[in-house]
Amino acid sequence: MPVPTLATLLVSCPDRRGIVAALAQLLYGHGANILDSDQHTDTEAGMFFQRLRFDLAELQTDKLTLERAIAEVAERFSMTYRLVYAEVKKRVAIFVSRYDHCLYDLLLRHRSGELSCEIPLVVSNHPDLEPVARDFGVRFVHVPITPETKSAQEQVEIELLVAERIDLVVLARYMQVLGPDLIAAFAGRILNIHHSFLPAFVGGKPYHQAYRRGVKLVGATAHYATANLDEGPILEQDVAHASHRDSVEDLARKGRDLEKVVLARAVRSHLEDRVLVYGNKTVVFE
Amino acid sequence: MPVPTLATLLVSCPDRRGIVAALAQLLYGHGANILDSDQHTDTEAGMFFQRLRFDLAELQTDKLTLERAIAEVAERFSMTYRLVYAEVKKRVAIFVSRYDHCLYDLLLRHRSGELSCEIPLVVSNHPDLEPVARDFGVRFVHVPITPETKSAQEQVEIELLVAERIDLVVLARYMQVLGPDLIAAFAGRILNIHHSFLPAFVGGKPYHQAYRRGVKLVGATAHYATANLDEGPILEQDVAHASHRDSVEDLARKGRDLEKVVLARAVRSHLEDRVLVYGNKTVVFE
Amino acid sequence: MPVPTLATLLVSCPDRRGIVAALAQLLYGHGANILDSDQHTDTEAGMFFQRLRFDLAELQTDKLTLERAIAEVAERFSMTYRLVYAEVKKRVAIFVSRYDHCLYDLLLRHRSGELSCEIPLVVSNHPDLEPVARDFGVRFVHVPITPETKSAQEQVEIELLVAERIDLVVLARYMQVLGPDLIAAFAGRILNIHHSFLPAFVGGKPYHQAYRRGVKLVGATAHYATANLDEGPILEQDVAHASHRDSVEDLARKGRDLEKVVLARAVRSHLEDRVLVYGNKTVVFE
Amino acid sequence: MPVPTLATLLVSCPDRRGIVAALAQLLYGHGANILDSDQHTDTEAGMFFQRLRFDLAELQTDKLTLERAIAEVAERFSMTYRLVYAEVKKRVAIFVSRYDHCLYDLLLRHRSGELSCEIPLVVSNHPDLEPVARDFGVRFVHVPITPETKSAQEQVEIELLVAERIDLVVLARYMQVLGPDLIAAFAGRILNIHHSFLPAFVGGKPYHQAYRRGVKLVGATAHYATANLDEGPILEQDVAHASHRDSVEDLARKGRDLEKVVLARAVRSHLEDRVLVYGNKTVVFE
Repeated sequence: MPVPTLATLLVSCPDRRGIVAALAQLLYGHGANILDSDQHTDTEAGMFFQRLRFDLAELQTDKLTLERAIAEVAERFSMTYRLVYAEVKKRVAIFVSRYDHCLYDLLLRHRSGELSCEIPLVVSNHPDLEPVARDFGVRFVHVPITPETKSAQEQVEIELLVAERIDLVVLARYMQVLGPDLIAAFAGRILNIHHSFLPAFVGGKPYHQAYRRGVKLVGATAHYATANLDEGPILEQDVAHASHRDSVEDLARKGRDLEKVVLARAVRSHLEDRVLVYGNKTVVFE
Repeated sequence: MPVPTLATLLVSCPDRRGIVAALAQLLYGHGANILDSDQHTDTEAGMFFQRLRFDLAELQTDKLTLERAIAEVAERFSMTYRLVYAEVKKRVAIFVSRYDHCLYDLLLRHRSGELSCEIPLVVSNHPDLEPVARDFGVRFVHVPITPETKSAQEQVEIELLVAERIDLVVLARYMQVLGPDLIAAFAGRILNIHHSFLPAFVGGKPYHQAYRRGVKLVGATAHYATANLDEGPILEQDVAHASHRDSVEDLARKGRDLEKVVLARAVRSHLEDRVLVYGNKTVVFE
Repeated sequence: MPVPTLATLLVSCPDRRGIVAALAQLLYGHGANILDSDQHTDTEAGMFFQRLRFDLAELQTDKLTLERAIAEVAERFSMTYRLVYAEVKKRVAIFVSRYDHCLYDLLLRHRSGELSCEIPLVVSNHPDLEPVARDFGVRFVHVPITPETKSAQEQVEIELLVAERIDLVVLARYMQVLGPDLIAAFAGRILNIHHSFLPAFVGGKPYHQAYRRGVKLVGATAHYATANLDEGPILEQDVAHASHRDSVEDLARKGRDLEKVVLARAVRSHLEDRVLVYGNKTVVFE
Repeated sequence: MPVPTLATLLVSCPDRRGIVAALAQLLYGHGANILDSDQHTDTEAGMFFQRLRFDLAELQTDKLTLERAIAEVAERFSMTYRLVYAEVKKRVAIFVSRYDHCLYDLLLRHRSGELSCEIPLVVSNHPDLEPVARDFGVRFVHVPITPETKSAQEQVEIELLVAERIDLVVLARYMQVLGPDLIAAFAGRILNIHHSFLPAFVGGKPYHQAYRRGVKLVGATAHYATANLDEGPILEQDVAHASHRDSVEDLARKGRDLEKVVLARAVRSHLEDRVLVYGNKTVVFE
């Protein structure tokens, strides 16, 4: 029995008749076996989205031929698409400051096999978490940042990310606002966890804001980082109940549990190529 | 612009290559436009499931030809399938006893347009809720049941359901165990709400059971009724937090909110042909 | 055995030593049996809050003497307090516009015994829901409002509320912003349900706002109405998950279930005298 | 200003008039300042429960006198009680097998200050997790267990626990059923996390059981270990949604997040002396 060679095709295009059939026929014709298929039409935006996961083990042509055929169909339907082979693992860099909970969470999930990726790099503006990275055998680079050095240091970071062939940057409670160059260099490939239910409590100290407003829920939001702080496309959100008994510290404690779970889910969705971004929104297939 | 004529095709069959392509090609070839497609493979059971929703407005053949073509493909892949046209609304009968919360909830959701169906009939073993049915203009039939009359009265009920051309029976806190004839006559078309998180607290008085066990959550479960009480395939479940402060009455109060929401979701999933049953499990497409 | 006569004492004051002992001793000394006691200290605000529920059945003095003793202790500790006898049911007016789900929900919960109050009045700026009020035997008053008549019509409403001796006004999806006179006349006694997770999506059409922002949760917030729209003290909040599949209508449908439950919980808390307001926050004892 | 010296008094006794006043008066009379007080009456069981947290900084007598006074009141009301001084930190032993997620979670929460205790000991029937304990500077003792050696090895464990003056044993996915001696030696002081929503899926492999039953939620339950497996008093439960897409591995992955959070909450409640056990139930004050 042939060894499975999985691939994922992510497609978005203006909605039109025949897309589903064209892709299904194409894959079948080449001997690719569709294992999963999920699609969505945003009728208001007139956009079509699809995720196809298929097995190439019995491909009757070769990858190059398949890729060319997909490119042709894509052109016909004005598709934006991404074809990803499962054997190529994404390379992830984690940015942190001093909070260690999200870093530990991601490294432990990775070690237990929950996250299918490589994590070759941890970057931080503080030296504190180097021991954690070391325990997990991950390279740690300290890139201190001051208002004066920020722009130059982000160039250092971009070079690091490029040198390590990073596919995804995860801001795991990284307490710096990213500059436009870094955002641009990794557009759609930087995940951030914000410690509130966005769009409530944008900006700094959301748990303090939540405490002052007297809300009865605290939340966390995972989103792609964009040039506009806290306004990027949202992938995941969750909340936990709060009461008058909760101090700011209690809210932060409850929030940490949310941050870990919400960020991990978002990272997982991205790694499994289940996310499509359009405008300021996301399609997150299950 | 042609008026949309929606149809849904629900398919289950042994997993094999080419199913997705065959169906996509078939529908496209007849001019049916696929709007939604969701599929699932249970690799352990070796089973494939798919739901296709499509628009027949620009059908290039006719329904009969399409149906024949589907039947052919179905035979080729040993498919069990169901083809449903959206313009034919399902007819629902609601069975109740004395509790009115699920009945009101379903009738109000129906009136507000949340449930795409007709509700021509309410059946009850008690006369109490006749005024509710009347307020909503629904026929109410009182079918009293005693241990002695049970079997005979269920024949009356079956006749009623047949006469009213009922497609789905919803047991909305109906406090009678259905007999084998009624179960058999509407196999896979009887939805029940059980007021616990099954398989915990099977049988009678689950809130009392939950209270005695000291659980910290109460639950509700919507499932298809089968010959084995409380063991039918589950569609929906949810829970709410409880504490030592909650009396049995409090648990029941919290539970009522769950029962309404869980049952309504299950009814909606069934009405929209998003549920496939296999063995004792369900696939519930979103 | 004496018939229980329950009373609730709600207290807030600057935090100081001896408050708990003073009140416990006072009640015990008069023969009142404390059934429940819950307290909270906001150390940041330096405020103390307590709720005491007790049985007067074996009172050794009389209510007047007890009330005088409480007034004395209250003065000593600079307390704001409220003493409520359970046999006096609060009188509730429900304000609605055209949406009926919260109205039905409250009336049904009331009828089933979940809400310990009287509901003598429904007020609406539209005539549509009169039949619902009539079905439940509740007086319905249509008070149409235009920008020109608003101020005068709110005087009519205030007179109505006073004439009916209303203790609590519940805005059950009432689509009018209340004017300052009505707010002032019933300060701390007007509950509103806002169909978002405040402070996200303040103002009109929150489901549309949520849809545009692409959030993955929809929420509902019950709060006291104050002069600043959507900024009053929050009692209850909850959320439900949303996905890219949800249209504005789907968000609204999911939201209606939240609105009902969140509003009902808040009404219940208020009716049971479990809420204390300070600044823009609430203490909601369980 | 005097340094706060906090103490907690946990009381349970047959319900009677005057208990609240007696304790409040007693503490006030000795100069102890009540910071928090929570109580509960189980009217069905006729039992009264109270938790009082107070500050001894301005105690007018001394601890010994206070303790004697409490003992006297306790005798008068037939109270079972526990007086705990906050400066004495509880000592916790964690039992593990091969799963590391709950162990890491507890050690990280402890390090971040969420759990007010000492963790001097990790015990395991496997050597695998020694490096984790070592990283956190905690003594690790490997106590291998076979059916033949079980009874003897549990004596070794009891001696270890006694030697380390352990107050609480946390079974953090420890895959051995405890014998009666160990249970008896630490009655009411052994917390277990079961990876299902008890009483559903008692016993081994609950995720497999859940998968086979086709439930739409997975759960976790923290309870005190008793002689009857999985039947001890429950402190905390929570659930997560599941769907037909979830394999056993997916259920286990979702479950691990629940296990960590539910166990941590239960440990925290126990450490803060917020739990009272009666019969097979718990009062968990907030």
